[in-house]
Amino acid sequence: MTKNKKPLILVTNDDGITASGLKVLVNAAKKWGEIVVVAPDSPQSGQGHAITLNHPLRIYEVDEFGDIEAYKCNGTPVDCVKLAKSVLLKDREIDLCLSGVNHGSNVAINILYSGTMSAAMEASLEGIPSIGFSITEFLPGANFEPYGNLVSDIVGYVIEKGMEHTKLLNINIPYIGVENIKGIKVCRQAEANWKEEYIANNDPLGRTYYWMSGVFENYDNGPDTDVEALENGYVSIVPCEHDLTAYKSFVSLKSIESIL
Amino acid sequence: MTKNKKPLILVTNDDGITASGLKVLVNAAKKWGEIVVVAPDSPQSGQGHAITLNHPLRIYEVDEFGDIEAYKCNGTPVDCVKLAKSVLLKDREIDLCLSGVNHGSNVAINILYSGTMSAAMEASLEGIPSIGFSITEFLPGANFEPYGNLVSDIVGYVIEKGMEHTKLLNINIPYIGVENIKGIKVCRQAEANWKEEYIANNDPLGRTYYWMSGVFENYDNGPDTDVEALENGYVSIVPCEHDLTAYKSFVSLKSIESIL
Repeated sequence: MTKNKKPLILVTNDDGITASGLKVLVNAAKKWGEIVVVAPDSPQSGQGHAITLNHPLRIYEVDEFGDIEAYKCNGTPVDCVKLAKSVLLKDREIDLCLSGVNHGSNVAINILYSGTMSAAMEASLEGIPSIGFSITEFLPGANFEPYGNLVSDIVGYVIEKGMEHTKLLNINIPYIGVENIKGIKVCRQAEANWKEEYIANNDPLGRTYYWMSGVFENYDNGPDTDVEALENGYVSIVPCEHDLTAYKSFVSLKSIESIL
Repeated sequence: MTKNKKPLILVTNDDGITASGLKVLVNAAKKWGEIVVVAPDSPQSGQGHAITLNHPLRIYEVDEFGDIEAYKCNGTPVDCVKLAKSVLLKDREIDLCLSGVNHGSNVAINILYSGTMSAAMEASLEGIPSIGFSITEFLPGANFEPYGNLVSDIVGYVIEKGMEHTKLLNINIPYIGVENIKGIKVCRQAEANWKEEYIANNDPLGRTYYWMSGVFENYDNGPDTDVEALENGYVSIVPCEHDLTAYKSFVSLKSIESIL
């Protein structure tokens, strides 16, 4: 992070420009730098790392955040980050990207499905230190404001100390009341996954449709996972990387080269 | 893989049920087991790991592949895999998932943007050995049929030998004529990325729109990358994993725990 200027902080999310979690994040971050908000114009949960190739994108300035520069976009969370970097802020250096605060947890493998985490991942691919924040409560009526100081303290830490060996943090906060949070734990991603149960029904014309439902199942009883930290009342912080190579399978796979 | 029965092979893609690359993959795989095709009803390039939460999904049986069981779905590639596992094949065990053959390469970080690779990743998260195939030619008129035997040989190898320490392979084949391919290399994911150049224009009502364009840039001059293998005329095989934890940053990040 450049020391002699106010950091430029890009803020985005996947719940959309009007989500209350986005306001909490903007308010938590604004003491640390100059904020520019670029967020989807509609909810984009589950959009993962999707990008828009088949139709044009539009950006409109909005006044949701008073005197803070803010835009809504008809693309995915990743589109928002790409447009911010390549169009809106193309002549400036983004020092930090914050995504969230997501309504609902993004632990374990959910980093792949989550628009919140994919937006942060996209910025990190560009070398920008990035943080995705989530609070473990899906209900729209949840009040995230009391967690703002904690979010702000984490942002301040990252601005002051930087990030070594990673450009991306996945941070989940348990919705148990700030006063009940026991601490912060640096964790690994749990081996946990969704067990889908599609709801099948008929539409008014009698045609079958399916709607995804499911429960999240933790298969990982080992130590130091994000799931365990949250269950025990801790904030989980998983440092992430984007190299998906499974290096440990190189030796056993080598014989496949002899096919040709 | 179960030894005493014909393997059940799920085949999907992101270019859609009518894509010629899907036909090549089905034809290459059918000698190795029983095929069930579940593919999107429209092109889904760039959909990454997106899932459909906000509208219902439909599945229709199609006869695109003669006597092979095949369905089209109005969801994303990942939706197709989830519906195959949880609805269409819920009482059976899928032995292998094949995705592709994608029109255009999916090297380096493109595994995150690619619907082809995300479908294979989704199956691998469920413990199913999975392979994504891509050939480095975007043009719809490209003829992938001559590459079918090579694809088939790779599928046969994986069925016979299994996969150790990974459930997912990202395989890219250079479109240089089968006779010119020099061999197969097990590789790591290159540090390469897209440099976006949004095309800005005005619609008939004078409103500005942006359309993503860009060039792929390789920043990785180290050995053993997928980009290097393809440039030198080799098939690249990157074994992949889904644990994104950046373990090497645990020590330096530990002090963040003292915030609370």
